[in-house]
Amino acid sequence: MLRAMSLSASRIGAVLVDLSGTLHIDNTAIPGAVEAVQRLRKTNLSLRFVTNTTKECKAMLHGRLESLGFDIKEDEIFTSLTAAKTLVEKQNLRPLLLLQDTAMKDFEGRYSYHDANAVVVGLAPDCFNYEMMNKAFRLVLEGHPLIAIHKARYYKRSDGLALGPGPFVEALEYAADTTATVVGKPQQRFFLSALNGLGCSAENTVMIGDDVRDDVGGAQKAGMQGILVQTGKYRDLDETKIAPSPAAVCKDFPAAVDVIIEHLNQPNS
Amino acid sequence: MLRAMSLSASRIGAVLVDLSGTLHIDNTAIPGAVEAVQRLRKTNLSLRFVTNTTKECKAMLHGRLESLGFDIKEDEIFTSLTAAKTLVEKQNLRPLLLLQDTAMKDFEGRYSYHDANAVVVGLAPDCFNYEMMNKAFRLVLEGHPLIAIHKARYYKRSDGLALGPGPFVEALEYAADTTATVVGKPQQRFFLSALNGLGCSAENTVMIGDDVRDDVGGAQKAGMQGILVQTGKYRDLDETKIAPSPAAVCKDFPAAVDVIIEHLNQPNS
Repeated sequence: MLRAMSLSASRIGAVLVDLSGTLHIDNTAIPGAVEAVQRLRKTNLSLRFVTNTTKECKAMLHGRLESLGFDIKEDEIFTSLTAAKTLVEKQNLRPLLLLQDTAMKDFEGRYSYHDANAVVVGLAPDCFNYEMMNKAFRLVLEGHPLIAIHKARYYKRSDGLALGPGPFVEALEYAADTTATVVGKPQQRFFLSALNGLGCSAENTVMIGDDVRDDVGGAQKAGMQGILVQTGKYRDLDETKIAPSPAAVCKDFPAAVDVIIEHLNQPNS
Repeated sequence: MLRAMSLSASRIGAVLVDLSGTLHIDNTAIPGAVEAVQRLRKTNLSLRFVTNTTKECKAMLHGRLESLGFDIKEDEIFTSLTAAKTLVEKQNLRPLLLLQDTAMKDFEGRYSYHDANAVVVGLAPDCFNYEMMNKAFRLVLEGHPLIAIHKARYYKRSDGLALGPGPFVEALEYAADTTATVVGKPQQRFFLSALNGLGCSAENTVMIGDDVRDDVGGAQKAGMQGILVQTGKYRDLDETKIAPSPAAVCKDFPAAVDVIIEHLNQPNS
């Protein structure tokens, strides 16, 4: 831990953990992270692993985490795709999915091409062509809901920066003069939905992540405490970019777990 | 003419005329429009035919007008593509063109794929795929200018509404956090550029068109007088949608020409 931490005195009941950049980078686990998850398991804390993926279904994410040695169950993973699926079920929608095939699995039996009454957009290079965008546009113009997995502008690909789903969501919003429902981080709803079924409120939850705005800022707006880790996409002074500041800034995930366990052991927690 | 007209007392020196919806609809001339152009030819007024096309080069537009019987020269046609080409030449740019092949001709010798230092976007369904959009995005993110032929949200196609270039321009603006230079109607620059070489100022120019915002509103903002015709995309009460109102509202292009000729014959003009 490089900076003083100041987790509030409230009892901690649940911990949300970001995946990429926090537990692992590409196919390498952050050193000590596998053991840190095991240390968390020995507490009574509920755990959820939360991520903004739009391309990978939960089974794929789980497979990768398992192969890296993490003791994580598939149903502990909550993704922006899960959040979209939950919204789609709740509103009983049959969306046209602008998603890569690898993400479709999470929507099994819950989409339509010819008879859609909603549009869900993720990062789907294969769908970002004129005819598919046009099909989505017509649905949205007719008043059907537009759901965005998230609105990231771009992401880092091996050959350089590449467009995220955000620009294509923005295109549909502009064309149909509407506003998408965004379901992923940093939406408050996303963090609160991740707690579903845990019996733990936001104020008793800590979120750990490497993205100061999407992980820490978003969680704090939802009433949680956020710990920023200095791995993954962390850049110097990121912690100064949000107000209020992160509850704690730690050099990596294992250090963040130490802060939480130390807090649990304090007499007032 | 259905409504009172109120062309100001200023001398008229030039007339700008919209094409689609004003002179013709698809492949049919507006009744009396061919003769009305001939009546204008008998005055001393300079004529320019101005349109927001992004798909058709001037030669194609000219060919269609000729086949409909119009006495119009190719170099009297000023399009949003012409305006983009002018800008590209002025700034000595080598743009990546997101344009349909049919529009490329206007840019002959003036574009680059591998060594571009600008991006020009028109209505180009064949270019609106992820890889091409990504290529454009990277150029714009590097700080190269983004030029939009226009930013129309959608247009009417035989099978229904279809996305215009606007949403894709908007996507690139959002992705790279920048603002495109829009060259087509209703930009003031567009109307003023159409007057280049005519030796006529905006206040001595009348614009005739069927789009109350893009034709009439845009021209009036540029200091011209606008006549709205009730053909093409005109809908009831369109004339109330801009302030100041159109200088005149006429049932069609021939009626608008009558108003202008009548004005020329008034003692104070």
